Amino acid sequence: MILTVTLNTALDLTYRVPALTPHATHRVTQVIERPGGKGLNVARVLAALGHETVVTGFAGGATGAMLRDLLAATPVRDELVETAGPTRRTVAVVDTATGDTTQLNEPGPAVTADEWAGLRARFTELLDGARAVALCGSLPPGIHVGAYAELVRLARAAAVPVLLDTSGEPLRRGIAARPDLVKPNADELAQLTGSREPHRATRDARRRGAHAVVSSLGPEGLLAATPEGLWRAAPPSAVKGNPTGAGDSAVAGLLSGLVDEAPWPERLTRAVALSAATVLSPVAGEYDPSAYEELLPRVKVTAEPEAA
Amino acid sequence: MILTVTLNTALDLTYRVPALTPHATHRVTQVIERPGGKGLNVARVLAALGHETVVTGFAGGATGAMLRDLLAATPVRDELVETAGPTRRTVAVVDTATGDTTQLNEPGPAVTADEWAGLRARFTELLDGARAVALCGSLPPGIHVGAYAELVRLARAAAVPVLLDTSGEPLRRGIAARPDLVKPNADELAQLTGSREPHRATRDARRRGAHAVVSSLGPEGLLAATPEGLWRAAPPSAVKGNPTGAGDSAVAGLLSGLVDEAPWPERLTRAVALSAATVLSPVAGEYDPSAYEELLPRVKVTAEPEAA
Repeated sequence: MILTVTLNTALDLTYRVPALTPHATHRVTQVIERPGGKGLNVARVLAALGHETVVTGFAGGATGAMLRDLLAATPVRDELVETAGPTRRTVAVVDTATGDTTQLNEPGPAVTADEWAGLRARFTELLDGARAVALCGSLPPGIHVGAYAELVRLARAAAVPVLLDTSGEPLRRGIAARPDLVKPNADELAQLTGSREPHRATRDARRRGAHAVVSSLGPEGLLAATPEGLWRAAPPSAVKGNPTGAGDSAVAGLLSGLVDEAPWPERLTRAVALSAATVLSPVAGEYDPSAYEELLPRVKVTAEPEAA
Repeated sequence: MILTVTLNTALDLTYRVPALTPHATHRVTQVIERPGGKGLNVARVLAALGHETVVTGFAGGATGAMLRDLLAATPVRDELVETAGPTRRTVAVVDTATGDTTQLNEPGPAVTADEWAGLRARFTELLDGARAVALCGSLPPGIHVGAYAELVRLARAAAVPVLLDTSGEPLRRGIAARPDLVKPNADELAQLTGSREPHRATRDARRRGAHAVVSSLGPEGLLAATPEGLWRAAPPSAVKGNPTGAGDSAVAGLLSGLVDEAPWPERLTRAVALSAATVLSPVAGEYDPSAYEELLPRVKVTAEPEAA
């Protein structure tokens, strides 16, 4: 099975309104509730691809119970650890006419030292049987900044390939613990390396400890620096739509290729096709399976020169 | 006891953000959860004034359970009727710097005919022992537009004084069933009567069937057309703050005065003082008890000429 970790899960609410106007009153025309947090999004895509998938992380309170009820309706196995504090909500307010989205994110619950110890123990148990693990998203209050580095070391000790998808100081610390793969976007990469030049920044990120770095460059696709070479992978043409969840779908594609022992170009193809099929989906954060199948043979992967 | 009815209850969330910017991502700095809907707000104020208070209406789903948990922590007695559909949320996004508020209201659950029959039965039981009843707020989907008129007639048949605080067609139908009191605001009054001239509109509303009409005119206070005469009641000076819940506090003041058999000027004084103390409160929708005590002797009530 594939294990994903989401320390800062969320009950994701999507509200449709004709158009958001500050300081006005809005009737919400549609409400969608989803179990959220990056690792949960990755897990849903993996399950839809046919992989046995398990999620851990934290959930608590009435909102945590709602999240777990929603998760129970999916094929993803719930191994979340209970917190005393309630799971946060996020609200995405989508303007119906344009699709523009305004995001409101509640802070997460303060996680206690005992709850963190419980998560570490659960994670260690779950590593036994995991073929790959993904550590995803931000840290909730109360969790020390080196938490992901700790989990990377536990995964490496258990010889389970580990992907890290986070930002800021947790990424900086985590990458130094030598994960198998990191997947920064352009902003995260710039924050980590100080460079906005994709080749330089991606190679720099790799020198900081990751065995491979796959940078997501938005509509331009992915740039991968791996022990087997440097590749660029891009959709056949620019796709227009809602980019919510496109990065999480790319992570799912990379993990799927990893556990299937596919060569790098094939892993990148899956990641780009899933990512584009998510942008094209009418439902934010979901991928369109027929668009995915249609895109797969059309993703362009090119080897890039290794020059510094 | 005093009974309040809220057919479209809500789990009210208040989010503080530095400033709401459309199509940007916001970190919410503070989250407040409250049991909401007009009748629940009225009941909380009545309970704080020392009145025995009971609420009925509908609640359902996980959000309904959260609302009832929050209500259980107050002195208000919960006689809500369960619905299969989940209780709606409302989100008030408050800009920290200015206090300006952007409101997002989910639609309510579709109430079934059986659930409505259950509410009517519960309401009839509760009328036995009620000294006054208030019917408050909008109708959820599935409830017929004459629902409040039906409840007004049940209350009158039980000889329990009934206050109606709603808008649009439910107000038009409800007022024709001859409630003891309606409390429209300026917009509701204009919608009902076609007039924005307060005296004319208030008297017109009374001719439509209500025994008394108390119109809330925002910072200018209240205008009351009653069988005992016409009064205007205003705070000693304009109050600045958040008007959320000011109308509900005015309803609580009117009910409080009614069950205490206070003369009209005293009822209006309580309503204006509570309303102003709600605007002045640092917490949206709550009233400031010391401001209330301080305002009570300073509210100006003046008899107005009855001329047409």
